[in-house]
Amino acid sequence: MSAHFYTLSLFVTLLFVSCKQEKQISPVTQEEIAQSNIDIDHLPSWNDTEAKKNIIAFVEEVTDRNSVNYVEVQDRIATFDNDGTLWTEQPAYFQLLFALDRIKTMAADHPEWKNKQPFKAVLEDDMKTIMASGHKGLAELVMVSHTGITTEEFEKIVQDWIKTSKHPTKNVPYDQLVYQPMLELLEYLRANNFKTFIVSGGGVEFMRAIVQEVYKIPSEQIIGSSIKTEFDYNEGNPVIRRLPEIDFIDDKEGKPVGINKYIGKKPIFSAGNSDGDLQMLQWSASNSKKNFELYIHHTDEVREWAYDKGSPIGGLEKGLEEASKNGWTVVDMKNDWKVIYPFELK
Amino acid sequence: MSAHFYTLSLFVTLLFVSCKQEKQISPVTQEEIAQSNIDIDHLPSWNDTEAKKNIIAFVEEVTDRNSVNYVEVQDRIATFDNDGTLWTEQPAYFQLLFALDRIKTMAADHPEWKNKQPFKAVLEDDMKTIMASGHKGLAELVMVSHTGITTEEFEKIVQDWIKTSKHPTKNVPYDQLVYQPMLELLEYLRANNFKTFIVSGGGVEFMRAIVQEVYKIPSEQIIGSSIKTEFDYNEGNPVIRRLPEIDFIDDKEGKPVGINKYIGKKPIFSAGNSDGDLQMLQWSASNSKKNFELYIHHTDEVREWAYDKGSPIGGLEKGLEEASKNGWTVVDMKNDWKVIYPFELK
Repeated sequence: MSAHFYTLSLFVTLLFVSCKQEKQISPVTQEEIAQSNIDIDHLPSWNDTEAKKNIIAFVEEVTDRNSVNYVEVQDRIATFDNDGTLWTEQPAYFQLLFALDRIKTMAADHPEWKNKQPFKAVLEDDMKTIMASGHKGLAELVMVSHTGITTEEFEKIVQDWIKTSKHPTKNVPYDQLVYQPMLELLEYLRANNFKTFIVSGGGVEFMRAIVQEVYKIPSEQIIGSSIKTEFDYNEGNPVIRRLPEIDFIDDKEGKPVGINKYIGKKPIFSAGNSDGDLQMLQWSASNSKKNFELYIHHTDEVREWAYDKGSPIGGLEKGLEEASKNGWTVVDMKNDWKVIYPFELK
Repeated sequence: MSAHFYTLSLFVTLLFVSCKQEKQISPVTQEEIAQSNIDIDHLPSWNDTEAKKNIIAFVEEVTDRNSVNYVEVQDRIATFDNDGTLWTEQPAYFQLLFALDRIKTMAADHPEWKNKQPFKAVLEDDMKTIMASGHKGLAELVMVSHTGITTEEFEKIVQDWIKTSKHPTKNVPYDQLVYQPMLELLEYLRANNFKTFIVSGGGVEFMRAIVQEVYKIPSEQIIGSSIKTEFDYNEGNPVIRRLPEIDFIDDKEGKPVGINKYIGKKPIFSAGNSDGDLQMLQWSASNSKKNFELYIHHTDEVREWAYDKGSPIGGLEKGLEEASKNGWTVVDMKNDWKVIYPFELK
């Protein structure tokens, strides 16, 4: 359940394509590299620009036992936003595209939806009307598509969807639209004994069903928005049921709150791409230990998308101002990254 | 904020003793042992009774690649209750003793408490009146003593308390009242690549301030009850403030809900000591993978306490019935454990 869902405009054609999910290209195992003494490039998909230099300088400093800024292993906490930071979020959050697909699938059991908004609009691919339904309409679509089932059922539905769906414009499975340079960054940090977490406005159970294998991040290190659930003993076959009620919104001020709730430590590294990530970056920036804040700036209208200020998805304005003021590192996707997606390596 | 707080009777003398906290005896590093080929006892403080044999048989089976019940490392999730399972919970939950101590400390700034219940009763060590104040009174004591400050301030207060307080009858610092056999069990599981979690009705930030070092469990693997918090940018010095409102009660049906929320995987091993842990054990028992459920039965009125059915703290009745019905392992503390506390090893 993402707060994002309530503030976005859509321009989407939904495709149902029955195809096998391809395994993404496994990024180079940075751990092995780091453990050898070979002077090798840990971030091969990054150009040799300032962003890359800053990251490497930080990691080398906090892992150097002789540095005054050395950080003990248990405090090497790194938190990453997901949508727009680790994978693409255009032309709409993938979770919303899932919700719309799911409504269409469910429509067979709901003949009344043909004449009931906002469902009618979904079935007719009428995005204008969907958006006109506002927060209330979008919330109804999300609740209907995400709740009323058990956690196991939901996981299977999401996993089936990711295996059979393709991105509307890139025409590849959604989980191939992760950023190769960020996969390398995750591996590089882990090779230096950082613990990597996702801290996203996206629904935690939606993400857990998809991204564990993609990012090599276990479910217990994925933090997101959540709905309320309840335990049902179910006559000896216990299940957890998903209820149509918001539990926690892991966005904006919710991000440091979520970090405190789930992790209980302040990160020394955090990365985001929108003003919704600003409070998370402020939180890590307030760490008394040496810390690093990273903003991904979407500047590549050819290979990905270009947007920032005023974008209904991933809007970034205050964050850029604060990055500039505080000397945070800003990635210029167009100029700092050699490739965007793993499949470009082929 | 524990639901426990609302269902207990107290018989407590509170002592303030200014003494340095002693480091607990570090349990043998089971990891080193497991990695060698020496045939050594992994659970030296356990007698060679059925409980110990069952535990070892389970661990050897799920870690044996040739077994049909082999479990992959990422699924080796073990969840432990805290109060009464990893440390003593008598004559009252340590967190409640902390709350009462804290009220006394705060009283200097609250002269009105001398004439206002339930505070008056706390200041006069009048346990009968405290208990008579019921859920409402106890909740007020907990809220006043646990909220209205930042998370950093709360952590420091708890850490100062644990360093300067002693258990009312055992007369040692509270964090020495952990169970040596359970420390060994935690180490043994971790040496076999289990990830160990605490899943307790106790307040998560109270536990995190104390037990990380004691149990060698990092804060992000400690799950508990929580109060609501809010992020405050605080003019560039961000803090998280603790609000006087319950967020989540991690007890009974809340335990599997908390496990799903924080971990996102079903455990294959869970341990508890009261009916408040029953749903957690039911949850792990419903795992399609080979699993193990453990109940600690408090049977040692000499070295620790003896209680089960009808006890206002750690009541255990249904759990024993279900353990018997399902073949779960029940530890008889008196007969299965050579020592209770680490200091008995001296």
